[in-house]
Amino acid sequence: MKLIRFGAPGAEKPGVVTEAGMFDVSAFGEDFGEQFLATDGLNRLAAWWAQNEKNCPSVPAGTRLGSPITRPSKIICIGLNYADHAKETGAAIPQEPIVFFKSTTALVGPNDDVIIPRNSVKTDWEVELAVVIGKKASYVEEKDALEYIAGYALHNDYSEREFQLERGGQWVKGKSNDTFAPLGPWLVTKEEIKDIDNLRLWLTLNGKTMQDGTTANLIFKIPFLVSYLSQFMTLLPGDVISTGTPAGVGLGMKPNVYVKAGDVIELGIDGLGTSKQTAVAFK
Amino acid sequence: MKLIRFGAPGAEKPGVVTEAGMFDVSAFGEDFGEQFLATDGLNRLAAWWAQNEKNCPSVPAGTRLGSPITRPSKIICIGLNYADHAKETGAAIPQEPIVFFKSTTALVGPNDDVIIPRNSVKTDWEVELAVVIGKKASYVEEKDALEYIAGYALHNDYSEREFQLERGGQWVKGKSNDTFAPLGPWLVTKEEIKDIDNLRLWLTLNGKTMQDGTTANLIFKIPFLVSYLSQFMTLLPGDVISTGTPAGVGLGMKPNVYVKAGDVIELGIDGLGTSKQTAVAFK
Repeated sequence: MKLIRFGAPGAEKPGVVTEAGMFDVSAFGEDFGEQFLATDGLNRLAAWWAQNEKNCPSVPAGTRLGSPITRPSKIICIGLNYADHAKETGAAIPQEPIVFFKSTTALVGPNDDVIIPRNSVKTDWEVELAVVIGKKASYVEEKDALEYIAGYALHNDYSEREFQLERGGQWVKGKSNDTFAPLGPWLVTKEEIKDIDNLRLWLTLNGKTMQDGTTANLIFKIPFLVSYLSQFMTLLPGDVISTGTPAGVGLGMKPNVYVKAGDVIELGIDGLGTSKQTAVAFK
Repeated sequence: MKLIRFGAPGAEKPGVVTEAGMFDVSAFGEDFGEQFLATDGLNRLAAWWAQNEKNCPSVPAGTRLGSPITRPSKIICIGLNYADHAKETGAAIPQEPIVFFKSTTALVGPNDDVIIPRNSVKTDWEVELAVVIGKKASYVEEKDALEYIAGYALHNDYSEREFQLERGGQWVKGKSNDTFAPLGPWLVTKEEIKDIDNLRLWLTLNGKTMQDGTTANLIFKIPFLVSYLSQFMTLLPGDVISTGTPAGVGLGMKPNVYVKAGDVIELGIDGLGTSKQTAVAFK
């Protein structure tokens, strides 16, 4: 299944996407979040959909999409998880996953504007494959990790490089501004993705390709990441793990290239759809 | 007011503490969290309490306390915010606040056991004054910061030093294990604290004083921290800002002293009460 949440910010309704279009599943009666996932919601929804598909109103093309899941307990990001990206930033290949958080208040819809923060001069992009957790996970073995995953989504891990790297210790300061986490368009359930380790991911700035990588180059693979993280914290249903970005971020360009108002950023991952953000100045 | 949440883990009820004891305010009909604070809950509760105090059942002494607020959107911590603590860890005095997150799944009641994580050999303590946000805050001026604060609470920012410092980049890995954020006993509303910048805070390990400091020595004061953080992320009602720890952590001892199973950690801050955790091994 491909799940969406559509409608005005803060008032999104749940929906399902098929080859025939987008459909409103409000009648199912649950939003897509922690409680839904924790109570076998994906299977319950699939069964309900099989019975009720014909009665679900279609959602007009062009309707705004929100994040395909409601606010999670946390957004966890993995740093420098593609060798080419580590190299372009001048960092060493990590021996263990580098882990940081993004404030969940950064979460927005896939095509919402990205707001360049007040006093920002180094707003940057990062196309990433995000894992959405489906089941509470603590001290999970790598071999069992897949059963704790609900699905995957496209994520742009916007990053203010000055806030992140030049304002004193710890990256969270450069990762957490409002609109810095456009997620979606879809939550794609795991069974829809044949080979998670062989997906192309790309990003363009004003139509010019900046990032063009493949998840085949992930240093730490997804089952390892789920297991690893679960040694340090409990993962809850709906939690997002953003698995890192390939080469081609603005920080890696010589000279650096950063987002300015009016820029259009488009990105996509095979099977997970595309998203598009227009940059606007903070007002 | 002093607010508590009492009862079994995950099924806590709201309460109020006065000089006469602890009282059940379940009849008020709201738990203490984001929604309560965002809708002027503190004033509404105070008005309700004035009318209904006599009808509120008392809560027996010894009843388990939970965190005085429900799970917040985030727990933000400030690193190295006391000069004596920076010195004992061998770190420089920060030029700007060092900011990191703790997973909210670490949140527990003030007197719950602290679980030493699997494979942990360096579990450490940090008595801290935590600020609880009362109103959505984005780009707040320092002079206005107080109006965004609901109150204060005692916090023990447990830290696994190997996970934090020796496992590759970013501190969140050493701050986020289950039970690593005992909060409370109380959420003390701001008007109850006469001088937030002059409170003694202390911690003992098996009865021996390890930390004994004063908030007078905070490098970055609370209004500055609220304003500063709000430049990088939106703060939501119920969010916790833990303001840093004074000298006397296990990492600062020569030789280092870390928590082992059976240890008893007690801590307190003037006006914010005391808490007590017993360390247990991970099972």
